[in-house]
Amino acid sequence: VHTLGIDLGGTYARAGVVDAEGRIVAAAKTALTQRTPEAVVAAIQGAAKDALSLAKETSAEVASCGIGVAGQLRPGGFVSVAPNLGWRDVPFGQLLAAALGRNVRVVNDLAAAAWGEFSSGAGRGVNDIFVVFVGSGVGSSIISGGRQLHGSTGVAGEFGHTKVVPGAAGRQCGCGERGCLEAYVGGHNLNRQMREAVERLGAGTRLFDLAAGDVSRLTSASLEEAALGGDPAAKEIYDTAALYLGVAVANMVTVLNPARLILGGGVINHCPALRQRVEDHVMAFTNANARAAVQVKTAALGDDSGLIGAALLARSAA
Amino acid sequence: VHTLGIDLGGTYARAGVVDAEGRIVAAAKTALTQRTPEAVVAAIQGAAKDALSLAKETSAEVASCGIGVAGQLRPGGFVSVAPNLGWRDVPFGQLLAAALGRNVRVVNDLAAAAWGEFSSGAGRGVNDIFVVFVGSGVGSSIISGGRQLHGSTGVAGEFGHTKVVPGAAGRQCGCGERGCLEAYVGGHNLNRQMREAVERLGAGTRLFDLAAGDVSRLTSASLEEAALGGDPAAKEIYDTAALYLGVAVANMVTVLNPARLILGGGVINHCPALRQRVEDHVMAFTNANARAAVQVKTAALGDDSGLIGAALLARSAA
Repeated sequence: VHTLGIDLGGTYARAGVVDAEGRIVAAAKTALTQRTPEAVVAAIQGAAKDALSLAKETSAEVASCGIGVAGQLRPGGFVSVAPNLGWRDVPFGQLLAAALGRNVRVVNDLAAAAWGEFSSGAGRGVNDIFVVFVGSGVGSSIISGGRQLHGSTGVAGEFGHTKVVPGAAGRQCGCGERGCLEAYVGGHNLNRQMREAVERLGAGTRLFDLAAGDVSRLTSASLEEAALGGDPAAKEIYDTAALYLGVAVANMVTVLNPARLILGGGVINHCPALRQRVEDHVMAFTNANARAAVQVKTAALGDDSGLIGAALLARSAA
Repeated sequence: VHTLGIDLGGTYARAGVVDAEGRIVAAAKTALTQRTPEAVVAAIQGAAKDALSLAKETSAEVASCGIGVAGQLRPGGFVSVAPNLGWRDVPFGQLLAAALGRNVRVVNDLAAAAWGEFSSGAGRGVNDIFVVFVGSGVGSSIISGGRQLHGSTGVAGEFGHTKVVPGAAGRQCGCGERGCLEAYVGGHNLNRQMREAVERLGAGTRLFDLAAGDVSRLTSASLEEAALGGDPAAKEIYDTAALYLGVAVANMVTVLNPARLILGGGVINHCPALRQRVEDHVMAFTNANARAAVQVKTAALGDDSGLIGAALLARSAA
């Protein structure tokens, strides 16, 4: 039997029909022109209809639906906070189930993506993985003995908000706290640090040249290029990010003893040398026994991981 | 039905008859005069017989046996390495089962103690706990959704060997690596740091006075006394230990989102102000959502936790 998986971003929704092995049979994407819960539900309904039609399946053939949402959730399909959508306390699972006429399981987008990698991506074949996604933010998910950890109130995995520079000296993080890993490593904060460096140092640096008059053009790929090209300011940002991320990941691997460490997300994908540097740090700083057991892999499903994971998680909601 | 729990230390073995609620019905302790596997098995056999006789139970009334061993284990009841006993690759579960005539489950001592706290100590009533024991070494155990995490090769929980000062600047740890949390926080290393301070600074310090001519008398309680009394060298060791431990624990709480953080072990028990300092750091450095969910508790079962936990874990070996 197939299930429906939905990846809900801040600007689009993508629906896919997924088989029991985690393969996408067909998928359709739609832009979100409005972000009210009702408009988002209608957009998803359209994309789901398109995906079903592309898959040549009737609605009745697809058992249930899973959806990954970037935000904090509460049991019963409630979205407590979804910053990208501007939502607070939306009974989203209920609204979507009514519109689609099927059971809906609402899960965190990162948990869905990690489950996708576990089931049919870089985590296939083992029971214990630690997944780290470094995109604009930094998140993680732990799967141990084949079970995903959610924590006592469903907020487990907030690896990006572990403290690497505790106290007043730490960089301000978007979460309101200081010294979080994400403030040094997340794509958004890498960009901010590059802008600060260009504004501080002005012309004559590689970062300045790469910005070509518009600092908003600088990406994590620019940072890697400038750092490897010898730009001292870029190198400092880059080396710091690699070290903090590598040590923090190593420490989790030491405690969790996973069979695989899976690294994914935009920053990892666009910065191959950074990814290698992180792996080197993980190998240098993980305790010997856990190090001997772990393989480091890059996430294999790309942008499909969330959709696939949500669809597979929906099997337990059927 | 009752089960037998055994706590095997480096110098003694203690056996107890434990009821289904995790209460010790009767217990007996014996010194280990020899440490060969055969001699240890015979000593345990004696203690188990005494415990059964004190409990007025026949051997047949006690279903199975669990034993906590300080060391690395392999499936099938093998002890890969037990430094305290000088063992390597001992088929201990098999030897003990033959001697006792019942099923035996061999578990790591710290995992047993954490399970004891979870089942009938400070973790009772919740499903998600993070347990940290700070004794001569530093160890941890994660119980999530009611299941204890073992990792892919059974070495999960090595919290004491996460890196707090990565690289060459880190203190040498007993594990052979540098910069481990245990090298700054474990009782053995606190003592070593105090000795180094006394040797470096000589007379005129509070630590020197507390040593009273014999640095081997200094304990973690001496450190707390000297630090709170204003001894600068003691204060530096103490503040560093509290900060490193507090931040490292906070980071685990941020990622794991437990309902309870349970602190135990000799250093925690003998240093109440340090324990409070660690709690304060955990509250300062844990991300807001995880912080809102966690209660900090002191381990409640003292030296009984391992025996009780091993006995309760044996229920699944029956």
